[in-house]
Amino acid sequence: MKKPLRIGLVGYGFMGRTHSNAYRKVNNFFDLEYQPVLQAVCARDAAKAQAFADQWGYASIETDWRKLVERKDIDLIDICSPNNTHAEIAIAAARAGKMILCEKPLSMNGPEGETMVAEVEKAKVPNMVWYNYRRVPAVTLAKQLIDQGRLGRIFHYRAKFLQDWTISKDLPQGGTGLWRLDVNVAGSGVTGDLLAHCIDTALWLNGNIKDVSAMTETFVKERKHTLSGKVEKVGIDDACAFLAHFDNGSLATFESTRYARGHKALYTFEINGENASIAWDLHDLHRLQFFDHKDEGLTRGWKSLHITDSDHPYMKHWWVPGLQIGYEHTFVHQVADFIESITKGEKAHPDFRDSLETQNVCDAVLKSAQNGRWENVKHA
Amino acid sequence: MKKPLRIGLVGYGFMGRTHSNAYRKVNNFFDLEYQPVLQAVCARDAAKAQAFADQWGYASIETDWRKLVERKDIDLIDICSPNNTHAEIAIAAARAGKMILCEKPLSMNGPEGETMVAEVEKAKVPNMVWYNYRRVPAVTLAKQLIDQGRLGRIFHYRAKFLQDWTISKDLPQGGTGLWRLDVNVAGSGVTGDLLAHCIDTALWLNGNIKDVSAMTETFVKERKHTLSGKVEKVGIDDACAFLAHFDNGSLATFESTRYARGHKALYTFEINGENASIAWDLHDLHRLQFFDHKDEGLTRGWKSLHITDSDHPYMKHWWVPGLQIGYEHTFVHQVADFIESITKGEKAHPDFRDSLETQNVCDAVLKSAQNGRWENVKHA
Amino acid sequence: MKKPLRIGLVGYGFMGRTHSNAYRKVNNFFDLEYQPVLQAVCARDAAKAQAFADQWGYASIETDWRKLVERKDIDLIDICSPNNTHAEIAIAAARAGKMILCEKPLSMNGPEGETMVAEVEKAKVPNMVWYNYRRVPAVTLAKQLIDQGRLGRIFHYRAKFLQDWTISKDLPQGGTGLWRLDVNVAGSGVTGDLLAHCIDTALWLNGNIKDVSAMTETFVKERKHTLSGKVEKVGIDDACAFLAHFDNGSLATFESTRYARGHKALYTFEINGENASIAWDLHDLHRLQFFDHKDEGLTRGWKSLHITDSDHPYMKHWWVPGLQIGYEHTFVHQVADFIESITKGEKAHPDFRDSLETQNVCDAVLKSAQNGRWENVKHA
Amino acid sequence: MKKPLRIGLVGYGFMGRTHSNAYRKVNNFFDLEYQPVLQAVCARDAAKAQAFADQWGYASIETDWRKLVERKDIDLIDICSPNNTHAEIAIAAARAGKMILCEKPLSMNGPEGETMVAEVEKAKVPNMVWYNYRRVPAVTLAKQLIDQGRLGRIFHYRAKFLQDWTISKDLPQGGTGLWRLDVNVAGSGVTGDLLAHCIDTALWLNGNIKDVSAMTETFVKERKHTLSGKVEKVGIDDACAFLAHFDNGSLATFESTRYARGHKALYTFEINGENASIAWDLHDLHRLQFFDHKDEGLTRGWKSLHITDSDHPYMKHWWVPGLQIGYEHTFVHQVADFIESITKGEKAHPDFRDSLETQNVCDAVLKSAQNGRWENVKHA
Repeated sequence: MKKPLRIGLVGYGFMGRTHSNAYRKVNNFFDLEYQPVLQAVCARDAAKAQAFADQWGYASIETDWRKLVERKDIDLIDICSPNNTHAEIAIAAARAGKMILCEKPLSMNGPEGETMVAEVEKAKVPNMVWYNYRRVPAVTLAKQLIDQGRLGRIFHYRAKFLQDWTISKDLPQGGTGLWRLDVNVAGSGVTGDLLAHCIDTALWLNGNIKDVSAMTETFVKERKHTLSGKVEKVGIDDACAFLAHFDNGSLATFESTRYARGHKALYTFEINGENASIAWDLHDLHRLQFFDHKDEGLTRGWKSLHITDSDHPYMKHWWVPGLQIGYEHTFVHQVADFIESITKGEKAHPDFRDSLETQNVCDAVLKSAQNGRWENVKHA
Repeated sequence: MKKPLRIGLVGYGFMGRTHSNAYRKVNNFFDLEYQPVLQAVCARDAAKAQAFADQWGYASIETDWRKLVERKDIDLIDICSPNNTHAEIAIAAARAGKMILCEKPLSMNGPEGETMVAEVEKAKVPNMVWYNYRRVPAVTLAKQLIDQGRLGRIFHYRAKFLQDWTISKDLPQGGTGLWRLDVNVAGSGVTGDLLAHCIDTALWLNGNIKDVSAMTETFVKERKHTLSGKVEKVGIDDACAFLAHFDNGSLATFESTRYARGHKALYTFEINGENASIAWDLHDLHRLQFFDHKDEGLTRGWKSLHITDSDHPYMKHWWVPGLQIGYEHTFVHQVADFIESITKGEKAHPDFRDSLETQNVCDAVLKSAQNGRWENVKHA
Repeated sequence: MKKPLRIGLVGYGFMGRTHSNAYRKVNNFFDLEYQPVLQAVCARDAAKAQAFADQWGYASIETDWRKLVERKDIDLIDICSPNNTHAEIAIAAARAGKMILCEKPLSMNGPEGETMVAEVEKAKVPNMVWYNYRRVPAVTLAKQLIDQGRLGRIFHYRAKFLQDWTISKDLPQGGTGLWRLDVNVAGSGVTGDLLAHCIDTALWLNGNIKDVSAMTETFVKERKHTLSGKVEKVGIDDACAFLAHFDNGSLATFESTRYARGHKALYTFEINGENASIAWDLHDLHRLQFFDHKDEGLTRGWKSLHITDSDHPYMKHWWVPGLQIGYEHTFVHQVADFIESITKGEKAHPDFRDSLETQNVCDAVLKSAQNGRWENVKHA
Repeated sequence: MKKPLRIGLVGYGFMGRTHSNAYRKVNNFFDLEYQPVLQAVCARDAAKAQAFADQWGYASIETDWRKLVERKDIDLIDICSPNNTHAEIAIAAARAGKMILCEKPLSMNGPEGETMVAEVEKAKVPNMVWYNYRRVPAVTLAKQLIDQGRLGRIFHYRAKFLQDWTISKDLPQGGTGLWRLDVNVAGSGVTGDLLAHCIDTALWLNGNIKDVSAMTETFVKERKHTLSGKVEKVGIDDACAFLAHFDNGSLATFESTRYARGHKALYTFEINGENASIAWDLHDLHRLQFFDHKDEGLTRGWKSLHITDSDHPYMKHWWVPGLQIGYEHTFVHQVADFIESITKGEKAHPDFRDSLETQNVCDAVLKSAQNGRWENVKHA
């Protein structure tokens, strides 16, 4: 019999769905010691919480996260509520001895993140942040190829995360599904929401970033705020681009925007090494582009790897070669890996400390954009 | 409260997994009157049946499908066992008044399929065949565009399903996972396994086929049979290609093989109409290629539609624009549509009669390949 | 000093331009013993001939090809006039001892082609047919890879040539630029015009074709004839598809049409061998797709070769890596290779005999389409 | 009769070939009042100059550019010699009243460029710089779409020019074909060689740049110098990336390197506007990617425009739809446009003044990279 891993979920939005789906599916596809049990979902609005519980099979609901954190029948607190709630909930959960899975970004800023790290490390509770894109099989394969030394010395890293959903001036800020436009709730705009993903992957694949020079822009300066009903100044960054040096001597460009017409969630990265290069694209996430200079010259070229073979990361758990998985599976992989880690008593990654490093890069980026200077990154 | 739809599954292979996953997920994403209940899985080997039941949450097991069919607590028989068992099980299930979902191809051949159709129609039980590719959102969108008259008169249809997994001469025929190479179990090779998919989609999108001229080939003439342990003649078609005329006057080419090095499950189709053309590819199933001659000349070109928007078929049930779903979701869609159909008292498609038409095309193809002549298709 | 190769060109249409451009450019890029000299262009309309001569630098004009053929100051007759004139001119040129470059297809049909072959072989004059696509660097590289044995046993060959320029019913048949729609001038429709290209390449890459089963269609049955001014029955095939067996045991599908909306000149082919596969596409002619099963499994995939490196066929003569050449360069390569062949006293290919084989395949295709039976190909 | 335009070419390297080819071809494809005449080529080494003259049909040679500039039988001086010679030759040519076509970049730096501009404007001689990529038909089409207002307010511009040919440490600096690595001859590395192309296109498509923040890197610090025979410090920038604000409020990222393994000449740009986006790629230069948000939602997507139709820029002069041209044709277009401009008495673009603006951006980029600060761009 599998051991139960009793989940208490805070928040029921987009991420509440992706996580719940992962908990429900993981044991059908992975052989694990633990089985997630959907014990409770928590939201301020009881009716909405109940509807979500019915949809997903949660056994109970709570309307106050403090109660959820105190429940004895909960092993793990999963934080899917907006960014400005992460720290308070995570700290309480750590003090209650719960395992913690926290949505990204970890915190509103670096200092807040440092407190969170201190608390989980003091409490010695397993902790992880949902930077799910590490677990796209193609991205995991990129990591494997890098770890095998296939690329050699790295010269360049470039990443972009392009969207186009906030171009309309009529879009309000704040409210359901729109809190990402409210700086008081989100902390920042594309930097914390999208570039944080790019940075997490980059740190994982290419090591620490030394310094950055950034620019940000808010294209639509004022929007109606859903809660106040008034037109208010927009505080978030609509777009952000930055130059960076990695510790390994490579140069990087990063860019994110919600004003790139034609792109919905175009997260791409490319790494150029002395011997090989790798490129990936979230819009075709089941492919990895690979160029190996060690191939014979006459037939050397970029390969489009269709990441569906059983020897590709995670893929033996799914279907048969040629048949692709999608976005939601990254969360299943993350749950599977988390369960493996607690089974073995090892750390899962990215943990809070890993994600604090990402937060510190974001802080340096926002600071550089504000003062127009290169900024060093504080290391976690 | 949702009404239960109690499933009895026969077979636990690849398709047993895809169907079980669909039953488990469908209510998390679709609002439906019924909720599938995993009541029982049936397989001759009790231990394997139990392992599958544990993995997927089936409440019980059976080792004789006849018992399953007779159980009062089962509403629907889902047939995932090899092709040569479909008819017998389906006929018994129909006589027992069960709803029936049958894996494709419907039957070993047309005459057998006719009997099956007669029985389910006599029993008036809801019935459907798992030609899942109709429910890839991009393929469903193709159907919508055709039904809107966007293509105009159709000139050409071409489809291929290319694989490469049987090139090795060392691969045996028969046995677990390999019954598709045993003509006595599978009925035919690529014709029934792969071209049947192409034909089902084609009939749905482009109407009936009038006549065909085909060729087949068995590249590896003898293989060890897993069950007998002896080298035996291979009876299946390793590859098959055929020309066809549709009733609407369009010309078609169809091809399938398991000897196309580099392709795992490359099901592609393209339709050329007077005003527009459409192309699709299973290896990038979340995209649809569309060329509209009515577009302004200067910027006319093939569009790569990224089928992840909420107005694309089925997609509002999943994530957000830009985030792709995969192969398994087609089965979820099929279950959702089936439940909708029984809720409304309408037929679900493709039903047994629709699939008999596909079977008849396969029969004509195999006959033409044998006698080297154009063959007319018998209509269901 | 280079030796002069004095050209007499018959015809001044599209092909007259491509050939003239090739003659003018070849010595700038290739070191050759001969230099083409644009001695005379011949056309019935003196004014048009003179305009063409002025545009391209021909030293003189003729209005009767018989006079051109008899001129002592001409070494080579280049036949670019419509298909129904090829035989008569070629035979006269052979008898006059001229070298002959003839546009494709060689002849109106196989028997006519046989006579042409007999005459040039009797006269022992160097001869070649302008199947220019052999000299696309990517296609030549495909040939090299095949000759190296990289593909192993060949299982499949498939080729298509898709266009969309005759969909409009208002397009007349016959007249300037439209003789390809007049069966009396062209001999056939897409079979001789487009499939002939596919067949020439296929025979070169994959050996002889044994037998074929074909279908043709004329979608627009009547068109106004430019010359008569009357609506007349259309005699050409608008579309043609056929199945074939090659002598090497591989199966093939070929298709061509001028009714594939969205495709201008989409000549594609793909070859699947036991160890590797190759695919190519005229719309991106500077790329070759290559899949090598011998590559390491984890990073095995289709490579998109950018055929611009100096070790790729012909490319050292052009620019630098990354910079692509186009359609016209295939003709330059053909002239360069022809000059090399006469310098060495070797045959250039495809010569008239090679192209008679292509003609015979076309004849078998048209015959099969007419009688609905498999037809054997007569070998040249 | 066409008027002669007598060319005196300085330099015989890669660019000498592209220009000569353009002069020879232009009248075959364009109807123009002038016909370029290859009057003289100038190089210090008489034997090499003569070999080049023989290859391309130049009527005479010179070994001292001063003599060339003074010749009465020369109308136009074309400067293809290394960057550090541009200014002196151009100024002398201007004073001699010659028309001037100068290879890019205009000059070693902005101040030198200012002098050149002053001289040609004082002399009132037609002048142009060979930023040939403006005349790729797809790029010209991008300009037309922007000028039609199809994109609306511009939010983002991003450009890259990636190569990989200097990764080897064994490559020397200086000498034939390698002067681009010698800072004293080239002025800078990728900034002047590659980013200058990106900047020229960007200024043309998107207006002036206000300020920049840049970083550069020299990955290989020392290389043997071909001329001295000694290992010397490398003075050029191997890679350069910069952030920029355009005057129109859009944000930009630019990057260039010769260390991007797998890319030979991957010049790409993308522009995101409120209503539409455009992307282009030199490796497939005959295509333009276009996304128009005004398209119907259900079939909205990125279009891959195959720029071979007769209504696409320049294409009516070439072949037929579907047949692509290549890199060399951009130079033919530039000569054709230049001749049109002198025929009409209008300015050709980019002229020296346009190119000085590009030079000033390069200067600001290099300065910013050196001092780590945002730098304003001086306007020409």
